[in-house]
Parts: sequence; structure tokens; C-alpha cells
Amino acid sequence: MELKFATSNPHKVSEANQVGRKYGIEFVQLEQDYPEIRDEDVRMVARAGAAYVFNIIREPVIVEDTGLFIEGLGGFPGSYSAFVFNKIENQGILRLMQGAGDRKAEFISAIGYCDIDGVQIFDGAVRGSIGTEITGTAGFGYDSIFIPDGHEKTFGENPKLKAEVSHRMKAFDKFCKFIAECWD
Amino acid sequence: MELKFATSNPHKVSEANQVGRKYGIEFVQLEQDYPEIRDEDVRMVARAGAAYVFNIIREPVIVEDTGLFIEGLGGFPGSYSAFVFNKIENQGILRLMQGAGDRKAEFISAIGYCDIDGVQIFDGAVRGSIGTEITGTAGFGYDSIFIPDGHEKTFGENPKLKAEVSHRMKAFDKFCKFIAECWD
Repeated sequence: MELKFATSNPHKVSEANQVGRKYGIEFVQLEQDYPEIRDEDVRMVARAGAAYVFNIIREPVIVEDTGLFIEGLGGFPGSYSAFVFNKIENQGILRLMQGAGDRKAEFISAIGYCDIDGVQIFDGAVRGSIGTEITGTAGFGYDSIFIPDGHEKTFGENPKLKAEVSHRMKAFDKFCKFIAECWD
Repeated sequence: MELKFATSNPHKVSEANQVGRKYGIEFVQLEQDYPEIRDEDVRMVARAGAAYVFNIIREPVIVEDTGLFIEGLGGFPGSYSAFVFNKIENQGILRLMQGAGDRKAEFISAIGYCDIDGVQIFDGAVRGSIGTEITGTAGFGYDSIFIPDGHEKTFGENPKLKAEVSHRMKAFDKFCKFIAECWD
């Protein structure tokens, strides 16, 4: 079964399909822009986005919003992660970390699914820390500076690990279980 | 005459009234939240915000959005200035500037005015550069690191200068001229 995934980021669709294929679900990228509200909770951003796109296309759709919340930076860049990455990249985050004592961080992913019954949210999180340098070229965004707890390499160095424990994988796992039951 | 100004920032109301009183206009703070859309143009953020608040209160209202656009950071923090300031403050911007060659910057203010006829936008800008340290305690936000072109002190050190040449003063001057004529 196919389901539309409104995003401009093909990496996200590819990661979603790593989970989806276990459930017989194929996520298809939909290049439909939507206004992202300025809320510090990625769940609220995903909720508003999914409702917006559904109102346009009138068929079931998901959007996904991810935030990297760094303790020592008061939760920055948080739900503004994509914008901040585009401007200052990982090098900028490492510069900011010079003044931040606490390198602990959390990645949170929220999927907003909207159909005629309204929006439902499925989230996933992974705790870790910000490395002291940029390492690894797999993945995208902050993957090359994020080291999940219990491990020594970044997601950028270890895409297999990312496929197993990442925030987005957890969120898609929850969502796919849900939608596979609906379609049963 | 009174006009409502939807903002959580009393500094902005105070600056608006520095201009308003020359035109017989009093801006009154309205603590009405509105969703800020994620657009990199402050004019678009102000446009959406003004329309949103007008739809709730059903009387003429303004909102104002300001961005600090730093050349060497690709326009960061731009229309996300308030969020970024709350998280990393001026110290964070100075850290990021270590890796940015170009310290040139522009402050842009956009006022969105909405009444029954729709939204109109009034903007103002001031060019300058980012200083190498935090100086001065007047004003708020990025005032203590922004040095307007042709001057040597930051807005934080020289509030009188800010009252004369700032982005927000220019935008409010345009707006007050307009509204004073409407009310004539």
C-alpha cells in the first residue's frame, strides 16, 4: 500500500521506507509545501502541517518534523533544527558548544498523520551527546555530530545503528504498526 | 487615537510610542498570541500575524516582526531572531562570528496592519555590522552587538541614535504617516 509523505527531504522518505517495507507500506514523496508554525514542540509542528496538507490534497498523508534539543544550549536548535542547519551547519553548532557545559542532547521525531478523521501524532526519541568534531558522512543534518547513548560513533559514522535506534525509526515503527492494523 | 499592538514585548510598544506621539497615535499593548509562520521574510511573518489577530479581535491591529540578517552567516538568524536570541543570546552570535568572514548585517522591521480592508505592510531597515564584543545595556535583543553604519557605538550604547535611525523607527514612521492620514 502507498501513502503520501509531504516533505522536501528525500533522505527522510528513504528512512521511512526502511521501516515501511517490513509492514508492506510504501511512502511516496509528495513535494507539497506547508507553513511550519513556530512552536517549540515538533509534535505541534507536525500536527499543523499534516492538517494543512490534508486540506489541500484531500487524501491521507503524513508529514514529519524532527528536532535536535541540546541541553547546554537550552534546547537549541529544537524544532528550528532544519532552518538552523541550513544557516550555520554542524560547524556552527560545535562553535556554540564551546560555551555550553552540557553536551547531552535528544533527537525527537514526530509524524503527523491526517485523514478524514483528523490528525494523529506518532513520536520517537533517542538520547545521546554532541561530539567534539564532525565525523562520518552517512545520513544528513546533525547525524555527523550526534553520538547515541551507549555508543561511541556518530550516526554519520554508523548508519546501521541509526537504522536501529534512531528517533525517526522509532516514530515510523509506531506509525507503521498503527496504519498496518487500520488497513487490515 | 489608540491602536492595538499585538506583542509580548513591551520594549517594542515603548519604541513605537516614541514615534506615535509625534502623530497623536498611542499604541496599546495587546497580549494576544499568534502563530508565526516559518518564512524567511519578516514581511510575510507580519502579514500572516496581523491577519490572524484581526480575525480574532475584529478591530484594527498591528503586529511587528524584526530580523537581524548577518551576511557572514547566510542571513542567520533572520526572521528567527527572537527564538535564536532566547536560546543562544549575543554570546552565541559572537561565537558563530568566529567562523564568519563578513560581519556586515542588516536589521529589518516589518509592521503588519490589518483592518477590514485587509493587511498592509510597512517596513524599515538599517545597515551596520556585528561588533566583536557585547557593549551597552540600553535597548534589548541584539542591540548590544549591532553597530549601525557611519557610527562606532552599538544601539545598546547609544539609545538616542537607535531612536533616530533604527529599522523599527523607520517602519513606524512610515506607518504613522499612513494611519494619521487615514484618520484625518
